[in-house]
Amino acid sequence: MRLLVDDRDQKFVLYEQLRIDELSHFPLFSEFSRDLSDMILEQAEKLAENEFLPVNRTGDLEGCRFEGGMVKVPESFHRAYARYREGGWLSLSDSTDYGGQGMPFVLANACVEYFAAANWALLMYPGLTHGSSRLLEKYGTSELKETYLYKMYAGEWSGTMCLTEPDAGSDVGNLRTRAKRLPDGTYSIRGQKIFISCGMHDLTDNIIHMVLARIEGAPKGVRGISIFAVPRLRVTETGELAENDVVCTGLEHKLGIHGAATCTMNFGENERCVGYLLGKENTGMRIMFEMMNEARLFTGLQGLGHASAAYLHALNYAKERRQGALIQHMKHPETPRVPIIRHPDVRRMLMFMKSSTEGLRALMHLGGYCIDRSRAAEAEEEKELFQGYADLLIPLCKSVGSDLGFRVCETAIQVYGGYGYVTEYPVEQFLRDCKIASIYEGTNGIQALDLVGRKLTYRRGLLVKNALNAIENILSRIRRNFSLRDLVRIYEEAQESTVQVTKFFALKGMTDEFESPLLYAKPYLDLCGDVAIGFLLLWQANIADQRLQEIYRDHNATDQPSRTRVVNENRSAAFYFGKIASARFFINQVLTQAGGRARAIMNNDRSALEIPDDGFALG
Amino acid sequence: MRLLVDDRDQKFVLYEQLRIDELSHFPLFSEFSRDLSDMILEQAEKLAENEFLPVNRTGDLEGCRFEGGMVKVPESFHRAYARYREGGWLSLSDSTDYGGQGMPFVLANACVEYFAAANWALLMYPGLTHGSSRLLEKYGTSELKETYLYKMYAGEWSGTMCLTEPDAGSDVGNLRTRAKRLPDGTYSIRGQKIFISCGMHDLTDNIIHMVLARIEGAPKGVRGISIFAVPRLRVTETGELAENDVVCTGLEHKLGIHGAATCTMNFGENERCVGYLLGKENTGMRIMFEMMNEARLFTGLQGLGHASAAYLHALNYAKERRQGALIQHMKHPETPRVPIIRHPDVRRMLMFMKSSTEGLRALMHLGGYCIDRSRAAEAEEEKELFQGYADLLIPLCKSVGSDLGFRVCETAIQVYGGYGYVTEYPVEQFLRDCKIASIYEGTNGIQALDLVGRKLTYRRGLLVKNALNAIENILSRIRRNFSLRDLVRIYEEAQESTVQVTKFFALKGMTDEFESPLLYAKPYLDLCGDVAIGFLLLWQANIADQRLQEIYRDHNATDQPSRTRVVNENRSAAFYFGKIASARFFINQVLTQAGGRARAIMNNDRSALEIPDDGFALG
Repeated sequence: MRLLVDDRDQKFVLYEQLRIDELSHFPLFSEFSRDLSDMILEQAEKLAENEFLPVNRTGDLEGCRFEGGMVKVPESFHRAYARYREGGWLSLSDSTDYGGQGMPFVLANACVEYFAAANWALLMYPGLTHGSSRLLEKYGTSELKETYLYKMYAGEWSGTMCLTEPDAGSDVGNLRTRAKRLPDGTYSIRGQKIFISCGMHDLTDNIIHMVLARIEGAPKGVRGISIFAVPRLRVTETGELAENDVVCTGLEHKLGIHGAATCTMNFGENERCVGYLLGKENTGMRIMFEMMNEARLFTGLQGLGHASAAYLHALNYAKERRQGALIQHMKHPETPRVPIIRHPDVRRMLMFMKSSTEGLRALMHLGGYCIDRSRAAEAEEEKELFQGYADLLIPLCKSVGSDLGFRVCETAIQVYGGYGYVTEYPVEQFLRDCKIASIYEGTNGIQALDLVGRKLTYRRGLLVKNALNAIENILSRIRRNFSLRDLVRIYEEAQESTVQVTKFFALKGMTDEFESPLLYAKPYLDLCGDVAIGFLLLWQANIADQRLQEIYRDHNATDQPSRTRVVNENRSAAFYFGKIASARFFINQVLTQAGGRARAIMNNDRSALEIPDDGFALG
Repeated sequence: MRLLVDDRDQKFVLYEQLRIDELSHFPLFSEFSRDLSDMILEQAEKLAENEFLPVNRTGDLEGCRFEGGMVKVPESFHRAYARYREGGWLSLSDSTDYGGQGMPFVLANACVEYFAAANWALLMYPGLTHGSSRLLEKYGTSELKETYLYKMYAGEWSGTMCLTEPDAGSDVGNLRTRAKRLPDGTYSIRGQKIFISCGMHDLTDNIIHMVLARIEGAPKGVRGISIFAVPRLRVTETGELAENDVVCTGLEHKLGIHGAATCTMNFGENERCVGYLLGKENTGMRIMFEMMNEARLFTGLQGLGHASAAYLHALNYAKERRQGALIQHMKHPETPRVPIIRHPDVRRMLMFMKSSTEGLRALMHLGGYCIDRSRAAEAEEEKELFQGYADLLIPLCKSVGSDLGFRVCETAIQVYGGYGYVTEYPVEQFLRDCKIASIYEGTNGIQALDLVGRKLTYRRGLLVKNALNAIENILSRIRRNFSLRDLVRIYEEAQESTVQVTKFFALKGMTDEFESPLLYAKPYLDLCGDVAIGFLLLWQANIADQRLQEIYRDHNATDQPSRTRVVNENRSAAFYFGKIASARFFINQVLTQAGGRARAIMNNDRSALEIPDDGFALG
């Protein structure tokens, strides 16, 4: 069986739920078709299985090596990266003007699922190149783009994002890297950046760094930050490559993603580092924010990828591993051993993993789809509407993707039992690799502050209102399905609880208890994420139930026994039954708790704020 | 500040909550006193800090090496182990008849906290020796005890538990290791055991294995299992040490606890392996069950230890690491950076870690205390009562200890941010080391089946009834405290919800939906665990509130501002305020969700049972 991505479920999300094939109605995606999309996904799966997956553990074991200022990636990564680059995967959804293929973003993300599930550490190299290329495309001068962008989109050169410094992580406004204007319009860059993913490596001949820095004389804080393209090797006027005073001084040793080099980078140690301003001076933070949605969605896709691989590996193991007898026969020692998937506790764990993974998949692809719709829209109003959906969804995608993905990896270890803890089996690596997703690209705490402090408050809650309207449109259809009425009721209660918390935050924000929304931003984000997933699964269940009823009709299955037979014998019926089961499981197990979680927030216990430092533990 | 165990909180649990000093009223513990106890704890802390902690990371990096049939533990472990052995720590709570010191078990567990927090991998060697020694003490012949037990309690020789086989993990009844009666009353043992912790190593000269095996002709399943002491080196009649055909054939490579050797052991490859029967033939499982409470509590203490160290490390980091400005001043770039403990989201994470750790501490020590009371009781009725409390508590201690401990480790990484993910800082190791606790000593799924299938059903729910009575006795006192009324109300609702699920299980168990209690056993255990922790914290809050009121009176602090001043300036007041804060946080954040979690179970969604295998994912 497949061990990376359940392609049937992926197709369900893309074509039956989101109907991405209809994106071809927009001029921007007129080249796009279902056939093309299917073909691309099939190729992505092949590449992921044949080249990425086989070097996932070797990359983990070998890691990156720092030797004389250079970084060697795991030897086995070179071939897989070459195949990826040759296939044009890096710029699948990018502008055809610079060598991209102009496909919808949601399709590129569906491909990312396969690569992420197979080998996240390897995918980071082109992933960061993609993010930095898009920045260059949007804010670089045409000269810069001519010089660097083609090669980046082709994967021949790579890119990074250089934000973090020793005292400026979440607090990016505190950064110290300096830029000095030079007479020729370029800037001299000087400073140290840490935790730079793929900052130095030997997969490509050149690396273009997108560096946040403060221009001399610029204001303190986030308002004085600019962003620069800083190539490791600069293309001179004569077209040669010249050293640009960019050095890597060391690597981090990490819990996971050993194959991805995490570098400390020094720019301008000898004051000879040239940077090219992107956009205008002091607009670096705004530019970063604009590019942030894609980067954060990419991180959410990491969580989805690990969850997907962890779930399918655990499922496969549960089908193959025989141990214990059925409870009905447990007292008879002669009874045959059964695959562990027959044990209720294992099935519960698998259903948790299944419904979580499928919910995350729908959430991520909805995020990408909204970005596509915003890009493709011709009317400004529609553009803004979809941009607003995306803005609201992205902190959920990033935070819930990483947290729930981690939880799924943890559960996979539990399904494997003792074998889950040993490196001979793949799941412990998933757990280690996944953990970083809750930290980088803005910690999940920062995502929560983004949601509560920025997204909720935007134009007096406009984003929430629009999202609730969109949900109501779909929900009104689902309500007609009598068989889902119990799930609808639980969902509606959960949504209402969440809306209550939203209002509670809005009120508290105006009082001297303005810290309460900050204190409970993360539990609120978690609640919103679960409600969003519950909604997406409910929506899926409604579609699946319609299909399942059609199959019952085709088989003249009118009573329960004959329907059970159809579900057990017909693969399509089994799939749709499984989709409904995911919704039932998640909504019954998770959304039933939404009211309690809302109450937990609105009880507004402020002990965490009131406790003196000595109260945490005597020093 | 302390980085392993909050000794003030530990003393609060031991002396103010459980009042373990009163154990000295029992003849069994007549030697025991508060002074002695304080001294022992102080020594444990010193040893843990000075010898265990410094070699925790080195042990992780070096790991164990398998060389020519022998296993070398990390070089740095030898000295620390020697100090531990010399100090007599292994047999602190064991019978003075065999060299032990006869202290209460709860005190030994409090010492374990320090060692577990400092270096769990190292502690496993004496920990397993202790478990196997107790088995030998209770079921070995006096000859066996004379020969082996003194040296084991002295830590000169070590011990293991050999249960798991390739096809017999959770399903221990399926084991294949064979025992053949020999004319001299000993047995010839033959079989393979896997995942044997500390199965072979060079810390001691000899290792005594406690091996489950089936005697020729014995019934299949669990009823035909016997248990044997199988020394690696057998003491011959002339007192010499002879090889006993016990070999280690390899080590597992694991996610964590690298310093603890996880061995594959072959017994009797040459049919020359001699084993000594413990107890009677075919009573191996009953004997194992009798010893299980202590072993499972030990695993729970692992989770507590990691949680405690992770919490204190994160707290220390949060006090030292400066980043970001207070929200009130965030828009002014000149505002000074503050330690991250000033940020509400960080405080919330710390409060989660604090309340969880303190709750786990109370839970573990209550478990140990009940075992002590059962041992010390002179009336049979009292013995049984306390044994029953322990029987009910142990699956909670083991499962919640490991799961919540893991969650605390995960949160510590989040507090550290990017630094939490790198091996330069200690928290990623806590996470890796902690994970195994949910798997070994009976997976947490098995703990849930033990709770639901065995403990709830014992004598028609007698254990639950007795526990509820004990809770009500304490609760009736807490209800008199007006300032805790909100917490009491949330607690009572949560308890009632849990009781409802218990009754629901009892009813379902008698219908053809008898699988429902199995399906939801783990969520039920989690709920019971949280309710138990909530109760223990509420109990603590009541004690703390009384002390705090006394301090207020002593300082003539009658209004809120003067009370706040006392709390900020007086360390005792800060501590008691922190205790109340833990209860407020946990009860408000966690127990408010109990009703929803109970509903999630009693909705009795059976999709996990009904879904066909193809519905999980098409093959």
